[in-house]
Amino acid sequence: MTAKSAKFRFRNMSPRKQMRVAFQGELGAFSHSAALKLLGEHIKLSPRPTFKDVFEVLGREEADFAVIPIENTLHGSVHENYDHLLDYHFVIAGETSIRISHQLIGVPGVSFRQIRRVLSHPVALNQCKRFFERYPRIQSAPHYDTAGSVKTVMDSNLQETAAIASRIAAETYGGTILKENIEDSQENFTRFFLLTKQHTIVGPAQGAPKTSVVFSAENRSGALFRAIACFALRDLNLTKIESRPLRGKPWEYLFYVDFIGSADDEIVRNALTNLRECTQSLKLLGSYYPTP
Amino acid sequence: MTAKSAKFRFRNMSPRKQMRVAFQGELGAFSHSAALKLLGEHIKLSPRPTFKDVFEVLGREEADFAVIPIENTLHGSVHENYDHLLDYHFVIAGETSIRISHQLIGVPGVSFRQIRRVLSHPVALNQCKRFFERYPRIQSAPHYDTAGSVKTVMDSNLQETAAIASRIAAETYGGTILKENIEDSQENFTRFFLLTKQHTIVGPAQGAPKTSVVFSAENRSGALFRAIACFALRDLNLTKIESRPLRGKPWEYLFYVDFIGSADDEIVRNALTNLRECTQSLKLLGSYYPTP
Repeated sequence: MTAKSAKFRFRNMSPRKQMRVAFQGELGAFSHSAALKLLGEHIKLSPRPTFKDVFEVLGREEADFAVIPIENTLHGSVHENYDHLLDYHFVIAGETSIRISHQLIGVPGVSFRQIRRVLSHPVALNQCKRFFERYPRIQSAPHYDTAGSVKTVMDSNLQETAAIASRIAAETYGGTILKENIEDSQENFTRFFLLTKQHTIVGPAQGAPKTSVVFSAENRSGALFRAIACFALRDLNLTKIESRPLRGKPWEYLFYVDFIGSADDEIVRNALTNLRECTQSLKLLGSYYPTP
Repeated sequence: MTAKSAKFRFRNMSPRKQMRVAFQGELGAFSHSAALKLLGEHIKLSPRPTFKDVFEVLGREEADFAVIPIENTLHGSVHENYDHLLDYHFVIAGETSIRISHQLIGVPGVSFRQIRRVLSHPVALNQCKRFFERYPRIQSAPHYDTAGSVKTVMDSNLQETAAIASRIAAETYGGTILKENIEDSQENFTRFFLLTKQHTIVGPAQGAPKTSVVFSAENRSGALFRAIACFALRDLNLTKIESRPLRGKPWEYLFYVDFIGSADDEIVRNALTNLRECTQSLKLLGSYYPTP
């Protein structure tokens, strides 16, 4: 398949059955938003408690796709998911970014003035510090999950307690947004990969494809320099490079590299052949079109 | 000052006054352990609610040192602290890694069999999944902070509730460790930097110094390749490289690079002069000896 023929929007297809999409967290999690953005509304969502469960479910073909967070602009790369990408043999079929924007969500009919307590995951509470400074009457209460906090508020019909979570969590559980976008930072984005078992490309019919690889290399004699040369000598632009020490193997590193180009292009195939010569192990994770 | 003359253990000095060390979190946080490992027992600890507060306190000279987490083996780099390192003009004076090991901590006299509920930060609860699977009678309850959960259990003299936190949190609040090392992963390490306002080197009198720099570069024409060449051509070994897109500036990236060598060495000074030619901005964060 050439890069060109693979360019189609999955959402424009009319699949015989609803696609089943696994993700970590409760319904209404940010991964849920990412799944909708990548695949459209007509999907069957399969929320799972852990990332490992998400990979397992895809492996057992109980899901057609998995949506996983891979990095966040404030918190860095999700190494656990890179580790799973090495252990399981799936293909990246799409990519998108979601802005992490927090909503204050209450039971319908409740007014903001009634609220005295707000539930959410401590990371989300911490990302809304200015909100709590501004309304000292409101106490923050840690909860196990952002979307789960909306579920709790709705299930118990709490009148003086609200939750902090995504817009999609409000929709999912029928909550009302009492205050919009109460997060401190506008620069909080999470990047997600869409995974499948077979080579499929999901994404917009325009823009440049990207390719992700993971490789390991000894760093002693400038192996990284040679690895980067495989791209630079072919004018291939890197969009991400990250090293991570391999524990128990001093001087051996795992590298995550993303670059512009598709593994269907000859120049990229040559770069990867060249890269295989100067690395100890190399795994092609997939070529995909970013969904803006 | 040459690299050699700078090699001394800070803890072997007899400072006139106790060194004041700021860190984020409650007393008993993992940063507290890192501070003790880096500077010894004779320090005055200054716990602060946010990373920004920690930098502010050091800036106002209300602390002599700050200890900040910079990356975690499971969760990636702490971009927020890299941003603060660019905004404030401090020097890295030392580095260490702490294994994130979780203890089940209760009020003295309470036995493990009595425990029905365990408080901690959801990230820590999540890192002890196997413990909760093994003891289904025990419910997990999210709290705002790991060390804070020990404080709560001790302050309220709770008999059926324990906390999950560090060994140092048990010592700090006088709790008893009911179960040791209940974390799922042995591979969870956090790397910390020790910061000061003036050039000081803290660490062991042996081993190789490391240097950390941050630079920005356009990636269009292989700028990264030239930047890496500044090190490779001088046989300087990189121990970390990470790129991070600069938001609002397409194709411009921030790079974090650590390498073996001291900015006091001529070869490193030459590499940095060379690096300045092929980058848009370059900041030397410091040269330091890792504390094993």
